[in-house]
Amino acid sequence: MSVHRPFSPLRRDGDGVVILDQRALPWRRLERRLTTLAEAAEAIATMRVRGAPLIGVAAAHGLALAFVTGAADDAALGHALAVLRATRPTAVNLAWALARMEARLRPLPARARRAAAWREAAAILAEEAATCEAIGAHGLGLLRSAPVRAGRPLRVMTHCNAGRLATPGTGTALAPIYAARAAGMALEVLVSETRPRNQGLLTAWELAAADIGHILIADNAAGLLLARGEVDAVIVGADRIAANGDTANKVGTYLKALAARAAGVPFYVAAPMSSFDAGVAHGGAIPIEERAAEEVLAIDGLDDDGAPRRLRLAPDGARAANPAFDITPAALVSGFITEHGILTAAGLGDFLAGKESGKAVI
Amino acid sequence: MSVHRPFSPLRRDGDGVVILDQRALPWRRLERRLTTLAEAAEAIATMRVRGAPLIGVAAAHGLALAFVTGAADDAALGHALAVLRATRPTAVNLAWALARMEARLRPLPARARRAAAWREAAAILAEEAATCEAIGAHGLGLLRSAPVRAGRPLRVMTHCNAGRLATPGTGTALAPIYAARAAGMALEVLVSETRPRNQGLLTAWELAAADIGHILIADNAAGLLLARGEVDAVIVGADRIAANGDTANKVGTYLKALAARAAGVPFYVAAPMSSFDAGVAHGGAIPIEERAAEEVLAIDGLDDDGAPRRLRLAPDGARAANPAFDITPAALVSGFITEHGILTAAGLGDFLAGKESGKAVI
Repeated sequence: MSVHRPFSPLRRDGDGVVILDQRALPWRRLERRLTTLAEAAEAIATMRVRGAPLIGVAAAHGLALAFVTGAADDAALGHALAVLRATRPTAVNLAWALARMEARLRPLPARARRAAAWREAAAILAEEAATCEAIGAHGLGLLRSAPVRAGRPLRVMTHCNAGRLATPGTGTALAPIYAARAAGMALEVLVSETRPRNQGLLTAWELAAADIGHILIADNAAGLLLARGEVDAVIVGADRIAANGDTANKVGTYLKALAARAAGVPFYVAAPMSSFDAGVAHGGAIPIEERAAEEVLAIDGLDDDGAPRRLRLAPDGARAANPAFDITPAALVSGFITEHGILTAAGLGDFLAGKESGKAVI
Repeated sequence: MSVHRPFSPLRRDGDGVVILDQRALPWRRLERRLTTLAEAAEAIATMRVRGAPLIGVAAAHGLALAFVTGAADDAALGHALAVLRATRPTAVNLAWALARMEARLRPLPARARRAAAWREAAAILAEEAATCEAIGAHGLGLLRSAPVRAGRPLRVMTHCNAGRLATPGTGTALAPIYAARAAGMALEVLVSETRPRNQGLLTAWELAAADIGHILIADNAAGLLLARGEVDAVIVGADRIAANGDTANKVGTYLKALAARAAGVPFYVAAPMSSFDAGVAHGGAIPIEERAAEEVLAIDGLDDDGAPRRLRLAPDGARAANPAFDITPAALVSGFITEHGILTAAGLGDFLAGKESGKAVI
């Protein structure tokens, strides 16, 4: 397994972009240098870079790469935007980042677009990193006020990976955990495997790198552990939050929200404002990506010799359904941890309309 | 992958017992001949034979094996019972079958116990097989009355494996599905992977053998599919049902029950009376087996050469929690499909007390 050194999931490197290839993690620490629009689009679509905020950052950088290797006229700009928008449908951060890039670049003459694209992509990256810090600070307040059970540290359950690998900062769902660790709080994290792509292993990898105690569980175990009182809070990220607070996040999130509600455990969604989509009224209108059956029928791991390998779990030709996200109704969300503070679903409409009254202290 | 021929998960073979080794499935069809008490206990504990009804049948046969290879006096009987009872804690069928064997054998002289043990084990097997048929017939009535959505066959979701591999007959949860197939109904089965041991692959294997249409899903996908209206009924098995109807079944069952209730989809527990435990008042009193972390940290599959292989998913030494079962509160169970008909949780107490008033038509 990888030696833990500081890592960056995405950084500019001259006329290229270097990513940590998340398809090789947690088994190999493999950096990959992207130099073209096509490479950037492939990296997003195949989940070499993943996580809603990081997808937005990657798309912004992909647009800059388009202008390194090709023209920057209106046709080229439109083409690059279309290619990047088509990579993944659910995370709104992708559309948000591309809309912001387009607004910045389209008024400029073609010759000015390349440098401007790099600058705007860097700004998005820096802002999303700062956003993670703010989410962490607000979330820390929630964790500090959580009642701790005798005999064990505060225990937070998460799903998928919404940490340093999913953002250019300390994450969304994991940002409060990193903040708590920095503040010296004792806590441990229940990490759900997150089949079929096992992003829970990415979460375990980055928590191990930060020396934060964690316990892996099969996704199926979440209900029992919540019902038994073994969890104090659930924090997840989001790929898109509708105007009414319905939240699209990695498939399996909804089941945890149901079980948390039944157990009386708070269920928080941590997300930057770039994950909110005021243009979508409710969860039913959020497009849910259906990914290849192969992801369910096979699995990646490490063989006895330490070599990465893919195993088949079911016969070729077996049918599988593979929706990559689900919708958690707003009513199950105890609060949204954003860079602006904690919002409630009830206050979300006002907040998205620019009013501060949506903010709440929970 | 295996060629499908008729199979028996457990059968007597002279002075031995031949099992289909379920640790090798679905990749290899491997029969294993058990000849000693120790081999029988190992086969149960390591899940070479599994499924609550089949565990009871296997334990009964294990007791007969004890008398083939050793003494049959009271001390030997007590020892064999203790060894078999200790193999797995949650499925009450194990304790039920052993209590029945003990009641039959203890009054007999030692010299008569071996033959009597084989006879009683055979009786338990035959009765549990007949029970499956009755469960199938009662469950078929429920499926026939289910409203079918236009444009697709009736769709039933199940969890784990509660079919021909889990019983000496057509199963518990799958018995209504086999009965529906035999009756010519069009239906398909949503098969949940059931991490960490992936018994959903066993379900897919036996449904393929019976040419019944099925779709594999990650456990995480159950919530979205139920919420979307893509499921007409959920049917699961049980390892132990408390007097109030709280149901212990394979971990992950509870999450499906929550999602079914939220979606207004009926959630049925199919189980023989041998899975009911009138001596346990509620689910909180059912012991939940905690299995090895290794089951979460590694996975079995088939490599490119078609050879079975185990892959590591997480570093050695990683922590994992691995509760093998969870508790579904009685309030989430639409009905219990038993060999005596459909019971409701409300009527369960009366029925267990010997009154017929617990039976209900749903």
